[in-house]
Amino acid sequence: MSRLQRLSLNQITTEKWSLSEAAEGCARADVPYIAIWRHKLADIGLQKAKTVIKDTGLKVSSLCRGGMFPAADALERQRRLDDNRRAIEEAAELGTDTLVLVCGGLYDKNIDVARQWVEEGIAQILPYAKEHHVRLGIEPLHPMYAAERSVIVSLKHANEIAEKYQPHEVGVVIDVFHVWWDPDLDAQIKRAKGRIYGFHVSDWLVPLPDILLGRGMMGDGIIDIRKIRIAVEQTGYGGPIEVEIFNQKIWDQPGDVTLAMMKERYMETC
Amino acid sequence: MSRLQRLSLNQITTEKWSLSEAAEGCARADVPYIAIWRHKLADIGLQKAKTVIKDTGLKVSSLCRGGMFPAADALERQRRLDDNRRAIEEAAELGTDTLVLVCGGLYDKNIDVARQWVEEGIAQILPYAKEHHVRLGIEPLHPMYAAERSVIVSLKHANEIAEKYQPHEVGVVIDVFHVWWDPDLDAQIKRAKGRIYGFHVSDWLVPLPDILLGRGMMGDGIIDIRKIRIAVEQTGYGGPIEVEIFNQKIWDQPGDVTLAMMKERYMETC
Repeated sequence: MSRLQRLSLNQITTEKWSLSEAAEGCARADVPYIAIWRHKLADIGLQKAKTVIKDTGLKVSSLCRGGMFPAADALERQRRLDDNRRAIEEAAELGTDTLVLVCGGLYDKNIDVARQWVEEGIAQILPYAKEHHVRLGIEPLHPMYAAERSVIVSLKHANEIAEKYQPHEVGVVIDVFHVWWDPDLDAQIKRAKGRIYGFHVSDWLVPLPDILLGRGMMGDGIIDIRKIRIAVEQTGYGGPIEVEIFNQKIWDQPGDVTLAMMKERYMETC
Repeated sequence: MSRLQRLSLNQITTEKWSLSEAAEGCARADVPYIAIWRHKLADIGLQKAKTVIKDTGLKVSSLCRGGMFPAADALERQRRLDDNRRAIEEAAELGTDTLVLVCGGLYDKNIDVARQWVEEGIAQILPYAKEHHVRLGIEPLHPMYAAERSVIVSLKHANEIAEKYQPHEVGVVIDVFHVWWDPDLDAQIKRAKGRIYGFHVSDWLVPLPDILLGRGMMGDGIIDIRKIRIAVEQTGYGGPIEVEIFNQKIWDQPGDVTLAMMKERYMETC
């Protein structure tokens, strides 16, 4: 694939667009992939989403997101497992083989138990995922999200969990924003060979404007994105590269402007 | 030592107080240790600081901070090494054997080179530290500070660097705020046995109100401080426990109120 043929719009980057608008925007900009968020999917419904994807000729790089396993009581954990099963069905219906897992945060001070719920959750939804030919991609988040979003905060830990399963069953999703700081990054990328299900790009702005909505457009920050991209490719990964940017300023600009900038920066910096 | 006999006010916790005011506040509150910041030391001068420490009968748990090694040009790196040598002299003069190193951030996108400057910086100042009977304590910071404050962001990495030297020469300083998220924490605390030069407490608030000034008073957040404290003590560490809180609201309240609260929370949660 030529480089632009690997580009994917993770639709959170154009947060104000509906799924239909995002898909049409990608088609206009010749961006061949889209990563779909479930709240956007819910807004228009699965059938309309399938029609939009088919009509625009886009490929779906991943569905965001399953996970969020830890919860204080058994009923709520069960509800979340059921929700993950719906996510697996949706991924299969939308024609992507990858469900991204944002594994979930703490519900009390016991991070070890939260991590156990994550491992058990993955074990429990995996059979359903396999039936639907959907792979579970664990995305380690930055440690600053450990309390509220993901107790899985290093690629090493994600690899350790994934390695309990076959390479086509459970793998990892590598997002430069979440992992660039890790002194163990090169070794853990090598270790993930054959299980890298996705690669996400954005940038780390200095100073960071906001914990949640402060990610930057590639090239505006201090991450050596190309170096990480090359390391990922040296494992054999040649799949889509998703641009996933949580940033209020970028959200506030017209989506077409964002897509044009993202294509340019992708070529320059990734 | 009884538990309160190990308590130390890291003076950044009472940021509005001068060093004299902080020392007098500790004496009033029967807090036996103080950790001194160099900008506060500079405000009153070394001789006056020594007098204040002597008059109040406090012990100095550490001097904050040396480090900040990476810089773009050789002249600036040399200037920083010289500044570290001044910090070593000050630590010795103040009667503490521990200089805390906040190792420094990036000056471009090359985190590997920045890490090399850190290692070289430590190697270069160590002989001077040994002459002055001062130990260098590497404090790994939270990964969200990797760009601007410390490219050393895991206890594993700090241990690896420290282990190149004798246990009484270079060690680590463990701050629960910076390391609580680490799945490798227990193993790395065990590994640091014999080289733990300091233990810092505060808490991780949910949501985090601010990247720099959002640390919480112990008990207000989600860190299982006691569990980490026990793991640290199981290595044999029985030294001071510093309360180090960067928080605007806490800074805005009277120092005596902060000290009273910190003593209470220390007993309850640490």
